[in-house]
Amino acid sequence: MKPHGPIPAGYRADADGMLLIGDDRAERLADLAGDTPLFAYDSAKIAARVAEWRAAMPRAVQLHYAIKANPFAPLLAFIAPMVDGFDVASGGELKAALASGMAAADISFAGPGKRDRELEAAITAGATINLESAGEATRALSIAKRLDMRPRLAVRVNPDFDLKGSGMKMGGGAKPFGVDAEAVPPLVRQVIEAGADWQGFHIFAGSQALDAAAIAETQAQTVALAARLANEIGAAPPLVNIGGGMGVPYFPGDTPVDAKAVGAALGKTLAARDAVLATSRFAMELGRWLVAEAGVYLTRIVDRKTSHGETFLVTDGGLHHQLAASGNFGTVIRRNYPIAVANRFGAEAAETVSVVGCLCTPLDRLGDQVALPRADVGDLIAIFQAGAYGATASPAAFLGQGPAREMLV
Amino acid sequence: MKPHGPIPAGYRADADGMLLIGDDRAERLADLAGDTPLFAYDSAKIAARVAEWRAAMPRAVQLHYAIKANPFAPLLAFIAPMVDGFDVASGGELKAALASGMAAADISFAGPGKRDRELEAAITAGATINLESAGEATRALSIAKRLDMRPRLAVRVNPDFDLKGSGMKMGGGAKPFGVDAEAVPPLVRQVIEAGADWQGFHIFAGSQALDAAAIAETQAQTVALAARLANEIGAAPPLVNIGGGMGVPYFPGDTPVDAKAVGAALGKTLAARDAVLATSRFAMELGRWLVAEAGVYLTRIVDRKTSHGETFLVTDGGLHHQLAASGNFGTVIRRNYPIAVANRFGAEAAETVSVVGCLCTPLDRLGDQVALPRADVGDLIAIFQAGAYGATASPAAFLGQGPAREMLV
Repeated sequence: MKPHGPIPAGYRADADGMLLIGDDRAERLADLAGDTPLFAYDSAKIAARVAEWRAAMPRAVQLHYAIKANPFAPLLAFIAPMVDGFDVASGGELKAALASGMAAADISFAGPGKRDRELEAAITAGATINLESAGEATRALSIAKRLDMRPRLAVRVNPDFDLKGSGMKMGGGAKPFGVDAEAVPPLVRQVIEAGADWQGFHIFAGSQALDAAAIAETQAQTVALAARLANEIGAAPPLVNIGGGMGVPYFPGDTPVDAKAVGAALGKTLAARDAVLATSRFAMELGRWLVAEAGVYLTRIVDRKTSHGETFLVTDGGLHHQLAASGNFGTVIRRNYPIAVANRFGAEAAETVSVVGCLCTPLDRLGDQVALPRADVGDLIAIFQAGAYGATASPAAFLGQGPAREMLV
Repeated sequence: MKPHGPIPAGYRADADGMLLIGDDRAERLADLAGDTPLFAYDSAKIAARVAEWRAAMPRAVQLHYAIKANPFAPLLAFIAPMVDGFDVASGGELKAALASGMAAADISFAGPGKRDRELEAAITAGATINLESAGEATRALSIAKRLDMRPRLAVRVNPDFDLKGSGMKMGGGAKPFGVDAEAVPPLVRQVIEAGADWQGFHIFAGSQALDAAAIAETQAQTVALAARLANEIGAAPPLVNIGGGMGVPYFPGDTPVDAKAVGAALGKTLAARDAVLATSRFAMELGRWLVAEAGVYLTRIVDRKTSHGETFLVTDGGLHHQLAASGNFGTVIRRNYPIAVANRFGAEAAETVSVVGCLCTPLDRLGDQVALPRADVGDLIAIFQAGAYGATASPAAFLGQGPAREMLV
């Protein structure tokens, strides 16, 4: 038996033992969707996350949603009025953000390989471009000149530090992201002198960290870096996007990040900030932390079989929808995501089984030797923490199985 | 500097140093496609592979194409008349195989999680189902009865051995694939007694091996296993699908599999086979080996930047099209795929650079500290061995960048 990650708090079953998502029975959602596999996203859980964040953070800090975590259109439309901005990473995401009703002025666009047509779309719409290099700055300024528009430009800074314990390190050494700190002041001066509407800094040191102290330390370093750069430039950044970093517990032993502790530390950091940042606004950019726990991936058992004494539950889902849960995306060692039998939710484990997907590859394993209640063909398996980096971060066309359904409840 | 995998033999440049794919300049193909990134598949190279295989293998052995490797419709239509059958792994792939013009009787369907509607589609079409379990056999027989049709059924055997040195082990111990060998004879008898049209065995021990001796040894074990099972059953399998296994060189130090040696050994194995298999047909099921080398992924440099002394070439492609090349699919340690500057093909390396994709994640690296000729914005990067498990085995919707173009030339 191998352990699985912790089931997120707040999920419960009805009297029949059926997992509830929102107030709906998982089985009913699968019926409504017309088929499995299904990603069900609980809007109330997303709203609760936003509220938890606002209660924990200093009032002045803005909340941005990084839509790469989950760009499902109904989810974007739901979350847009609750947050202060969207961060996008491509022209496609820019389009989705605009379609959600988010104001262009509250959209910022980061990403190391922006094409000219993407820069043009952002400038035309009035979104902020987080410049990733001197070359991109030159292209953006030239496009704006051609369009006879004043572009909103911020500079993404490659920090000299990283976020300790983060799953994805975005700073600390040579990186394809942003501009090395020492090259930022001349670039910002160039942007201002060219007549652009300078929006400030984007500083993102890492993501998927669970240690509040590490996040707090990184935020303090980030604010100090912004102040140092602002002093060198001789101008106050209108906005400092201090990045995200708050992760979610996927694996055995993981515990939720202490948002209150992050907020308290950030309050102290901002209270003590350098005078040059006195009038600056600050924003945190969160993706996964806002939406991961709200999502459940439901997949139905198609076959139950035994091979050399090991029991396999074969489902109609798999890594084509849940690549990270299969251990094939961004992790070196495969560990089990939180998993349960949705229609025996909370029941005691009765056997050790491996839950596999329907793909004809040994990589397609959703639960490796996990202890579960007895389950059979027709039962529903639930994989949790499925609200972020699931549907769009998986090879949906692989083996011709087709994409999963998605539903906001 | 880190090495990259070997450029496949036969690729050359024109007088301008532009990579040729088929007889076309890479840059012209990008123009024809309308945009980069582009997967270009060289049909002549695919035809040459088929011819190489036929020249190497015993005449009696049939060649099946596993379309999961690359299901691009024009490629399927091109290869269909050249091979003896298609192997599919889902209802979606079955549809694609039928649309390509391949006769249903020459299509076989393997995969551990077939739904009832997929079984029904295969039976209705007249394709062969490779049964993965006793439960699946019961369902298939019941569906056939309801349809009043005689289903073509083979049994997929979970062999007690694996393919040594293979990238993907599909046998040897507890597996979700197929039926454990000792349970096969009663299942085949049940299938025959139920009146089904028993088609034989499907025995797949592993894939992506480069060592001809290991493949030959596995093939000998496979034929011996088929004979043992046939003798237990007391009936000759009409067809024995002995699996694939022949891989391609992706990484530094990899060398091509010696197809002639595989063929010579298989000839001996078949000549010496047990009498029970005297009238059986044999098939090899190849995917990657037939199409990988024919494919080149072309992506354009959007930015060239330096961070802490390291040079990055930022492209408009990335892991959303080439997940395996980024090191995030089926490999534990990231190594470099074969890579070149398409418009300076064959030129001497002048610098060490990292080639990254346009996605805002540190995972998105196509070439890590590789030695390349000097390249700049607008130049084309070529990633080789891109004809298999590229476009459809990657998360095309990730970060809203959209899928790559594909073209058969």
